[in-house]
Amino acid sequence: MRQIGSTPVTAPGWTAKPKEGIAIVDCDVHHNFRHPTQLLPYLSKFYQEHLLDQGLHLGGYPNIPIRSNRVDLKGRVEEAIESTPKNSGGDPRDFNFTLEFLQDEHLDVWNIDVALLTGPPPFYGYSGLPDPDWAAALCRAFNDWTIEHWLDRDERVVNAILVSPSDPPQAVEEINRLAHRKDTAAVMVPMGTSRPFGNRFYHPIWEACEAHGLPVVSHIGGGGGATRNTPTPVGHPTYYMESRMSRPYVASSHATSLICEGVFEKFPNLKFALIEVQQMWAVPVMWHLDTDWKALRDQTPWLKRLPSEYFREHIRIGSQPMHEPEKPEQMYQMLEMLHADETLIFCSDFPHFDWNDP
Amino acid sequence: MRQIGSTPVTAPGWTAKPKEGIAIVDCDVHHNFRHPTQLLPYLSKFYQEHLLDQGLHLGGYPNIPIRSNRVDLKGRVEEAIESTPKNSGGDPRDFNFTLEFLQDEHLDVWNIDVALLTGPPPFYGYSGLPDPDWAAALCRAFNDWTIEHWLDRDERVVNAILVSPSDPPQAVEEINRLAHRKDTAAVMVPMGTSRPFGNRFYHPIWEACEAHGLPVVSHIGGGGGATRNTPTPVGHPTYYMESRMSRPYVASSHATSLICEGVFEKFPNLKFALIEVQQMWAVPVMWHLDTDWKALRDQTPWLKRLPSEYFREHIRIGSQPMHEPEKPEQMYQMLEMLHADETLIFCSDFPHFDWNDP
Repeated sequence: MRQIGSTPVTAPGWTAKPKEGIAIVDCDVHHNFRHPTQLLPYLSKFYQEHLLDQGLHLGGYPNIPIRSNRVDLKGRVEEAIESTPKNSGGDPRDFNFTLEFLQDEHLDVWNIDVALLTGPPPFYGYSGLPDPDWAAALCRAFNDWTIEHWLDRDERVVNAILVSPSDPPQAVEEINRLAHRKDTAAVMVPMGTSRPFGNRFYHPIWEACEAHGLPVVSHIGGGGGATRNTPTPVGHPTYYMESRMSRPYVASSHATSLICEGVFEKFPNLKFALIEVQQMWAVPVMWHLDTDWKALRDQTPWLKRLPSEYFREHIRIGSQPMHEPEKPEQMYQMLEMLHADETLIFCSDFPHFDWNDP
Repeated sequence: MRQIGSTPVTAPGWTAKPKEGIAIVDCDVHHNFRHPTQLLPYLSKFYQEHLLDQGLHLGGYPNIPIRSNRVDLKGRVEEAIESTPKNSGGDPRDFNFTLEFLQDEHLDVWNIDVALLTGPPPFYGYSGLPDPDWAAALCRAFNDWTIEHWLDRDERVVNAILVSPSDPPQAVEEINRLAHRKDTAAVMVPMGTSRPFGNRFYHPIWEACEAHGLPVVSHIGGGGGATRNTPTPVGHPTYYMESRMSRPYVASSHATSLICEGVFEKFPNLKFALIEVQQMWAVPVMWHLDTDWKALRDQTPWLKRLPSEYFREHIRIGSQPMHEPEKPEQMYQMLEMLHADETLIFCSDFPHFDWNDP
């Protein structure tokens, strides 16, 4: 196995001495198909017809921009237009995102040692499809497409198996089908669900993840759409900027639920990453849960430690989008409050407009 | 007018020298009727029958304790049992909460200079009643009962007019009816609504508040029930401890909406207090909004300043329940991040179990 961290870390614009002995693991790299019809070879005849007749109908909150990629990478648009067949469902204004593109524009530029493929957030809407069989078929097809087009060609690239939380038994089946691959590094479950992740409904998925030693990586997305709750407890915000503020509510609700329902007592080796949801929300959640637990712990007698201890041991938070505090020292204060040495993992969100470099 | 702050601040257990020249303004004192039938004299014949035939049917999230008062004040229970008529809808296990009780157990004990009456949170469910006329009638009745039983008898006690956000024209009428009273100090709108407070639907209420120079005090509550969204974007949490974690989502959603929809440009003298929702959530909201606004401000061109500047000038946050950070210095760090000198107001939440003394 190759030695990670062997390449000194430097980058465009970096004026200091290259850093030795540090590996960069990027836990959020979005790969994507050019158009949904690319999934056809990986679907059964029945679902091929389903896709061609009905389309994807992936629900999404109506004020999220459809294309949110970095504009400085749009040089490849011309090439992409040619590669987008008419009526394929692809948008010719998107660039053509391939492994070579990822290597040229990201992995080689920043000396990324390991990149975790997390799939395309608009596709996460599969988790909100009313039909859980269709959602499971789409996940299988996407995973098979990823294997054929992205894996086994660059040892830096590892994969998060996409599964749908809408039907845990089928999610478990998919995990069991792919867990043996050496490039399977995690299980990706979209964060937008109809009940919080501590709920017993989901426990079979967490059990399978723990059994295979795979962490869960849950990315924001899969909310919106006809089968989902409103993004805030007081209804729909009007502007996209507002809806971004509701992401921490989703992460905080899942973290709280996982802790309070005793998931980490039941699955003591499970790790759970919540990504693209900012970071600071975790501080008041840890503080508040610890205080309230002292008064209200009769409701959750299975918890043997402070809620924040479960948080720090089992939950990980993606670094993107990173808060920009008013004063530089507040960044360090926040990281200390967050126990960032234990909880924070690097995520670039490449190639989206609001990505963060290492 | 009496001089506030003239009584040195000291309290039971206070070992230091009494503090001179400081006034204590408590912005959250919950007064309550003994039983709903006490509202009958203040309702029309039609609504008297409505209350007696149908009861209140105030929706509430099903895992909130019905009685959440301080147990050290329960000495008055015996007296309360005698004062609770059978079939009145009152619970004899609650204590008998009167102005004299408030004076003896709170105002005199802590030398409170000003106490803002905010009404009983379980009653806030009026805002979620399907019938907005019934909600408006209940508010009027409660306000009239407050005037007769709580006001004009102690100059320390001021009132927040209860209105329902479900029908802004009737809320405006109620504000206009009572704004002239010298003990009217604010307008109370429950925080549980079906759309966030920046929405144009509510602007007539904010306009009336600004016209009378009355701040809005919005207390958590009025969520739950059949007409309301789930407390989190991912459904119902299981335990009460979890549901408490969702309060900041409500406050954050309203604050974000009020700022992004330009309410403080339209009503430049409006002040808006969000209470019993913790405090720390406001830090990432200010940081994140400022960052995102720089990229996304084309959607909200009416905003002329950083979102955090509107927050600091117009929004106030109640001090209860107060976070308990891991390290004492983190309390000061949080208060600085929060610009607490501008944004934080003292709230005791008397007489609830999780109240905070000054």
